[in-house]
Amino acid sequence: MEEIRLIEVKEEIHADNKAKADALRKRLMANKTFLLNLMSSPGAGKTTVILRTIEALRNDLHMSVIEADIDSMVDAEKIAKTGITAVQLRTGGFCHLDASMVERGLEGLDLGSLDLVIIENVGNLVCPAEFDTGAIRNAMILSVPEGDDKPLKYPLMFTVCDVLLINKIDYLQLSDFDVRAVRERVMRLNPGIKIFEVSSKTGQGIGDWAQWLKKEVDEFRSG
Amino acid sequence: MEEIRLIEVKEEIHADNKAKADALRKRLMANKTFLLNLMSSPGAGKTTVILRTIEALRNDLHMSVIEADIDSMVDAEKIAKTGITAVQLRTGGFCHLDASMVERGLEGLDLGSLDLVIIENVGNLVCPAEFDTGAIRNAMILSVPEGDDKPLKYPLMFTVCDVLLINKIDYLQLSDFDVRAVRERVMRLNPGIKIFEVSSKTGQGIGDWAQWLKKEVDEFRSG
Repeated sequence: MEEIRLIEVKEEIHADNKAKADALRKRLMANKTFLLNLMSSPGAGKTTVILRTIEALRNDLHMSVIEADIDSMVDAEKIAKTGITAVQLRTGGFCHLDASMVERGLEGLDLGSLDLVIIENVGNLVCPAEFDTGAIRNAMILSVPEGDDKPLKYPLMFTVCDVLLINKIDYLQLSDFDVRAVRERVMRLNPGIKIFEVSSKTGQGIGDWAQWLKKEVDEFRSG
Repeated sequence: MEEIRLIEVKEEIHADNKAKADALRKRLMANKTFLLNLMSSPGAGKTTVILRTIEALRNDLHMSVIEADIDSMVDAEKIAKTGITAVQLRTGGFCHLDASMVERGLEGLDLGSLDLVIIENVGNLVCPAEFDTGAIRNAMILSVPEGDDKPLKYPLMFTVCDVLLINKIDYLQLSDFDVRAVRERVMRLNPGIKIFEVSSKTGQGIGDWAQWLKKEVDEFRSG
């Protein structure tokens, strides 16, 4: 049963976004629902990584996806085809999600029945890094064609994330992208970060990533 | 003689950004200096396109480049190696340039001696589209690995630009990117837009783009 819900969100200027995010996290803990905030540049592969993750974990976890987009529903439509409920947040011109927007996205979902909700944030390496969405973990994707200098140029994003997926490793054959240099640059910014090399096209590396995510969800739910 | 200047910019909230941008355009017209605002996602190839453009036009035009970056100087260093003066605007956390920031970037340059100044905006498909920088023309790059759905998801950017470079066409062999679909989606948003297919890696298509830009600069300067 595929389903898409469309919600128009508007930015409220909350001095207390952090407080809202903390309150949301408490609610998620009470419901044992793990919320993952997935960020990246436009076109780094957020939607296809989510599709692969659904494929890998759908027998183990009850999932839903919140899609943020400025002005389209194409990603939510792709998710809904898997039979997973997708909530589409249409952000108008806004360039990031905050905790209130995520709360609106969660409104129609039955948190008690969900183990994992993945937020696909707006494609942007700058603004989303500055707003706590209330998520339990922050993840980002850097895709090989974007280049290995991105940790130097967008350091905050690499600093706030718990996990980095280096995606599109199937492009490495055509690229001078230096995986080792990226790992070093990222570890310098954020020594605790977990890094996976994946290809959402071929599926390479997705198993390891999904296994890690499953373990995080399980620990959260039993903790 | 390579040269880099570093300027820290901070966002001022100008209700009158548009007025500032118009005033800047008047100044540019008086000096016959063409200002090109180049925008794209992170890693779409702005810097390499600029390097190719310098290579193609350096015998015909006096040029300078303004680099906007959140927290590094790597792009300005690459430009400066060509012998072209590069001004580095360090934007802190800001996700776009406005007309005041560009004005600060132009401060140290002798506009009267420059035919063309290229602004490399912050890598972001959302916010930069909303701010008039004072440029004479707006250009954007969409790179093949980002996917052909970007005009659906970031329509404003494709609407405000005079020219679109579809970059990294050397990746088409590994990609299901549909060039014709992109052309149709973009023309629907912006029928007057000029589109070039290029590879900043191999140089393919750069000649046509540089020729178009040269013609725009010449017409502006003689107009």
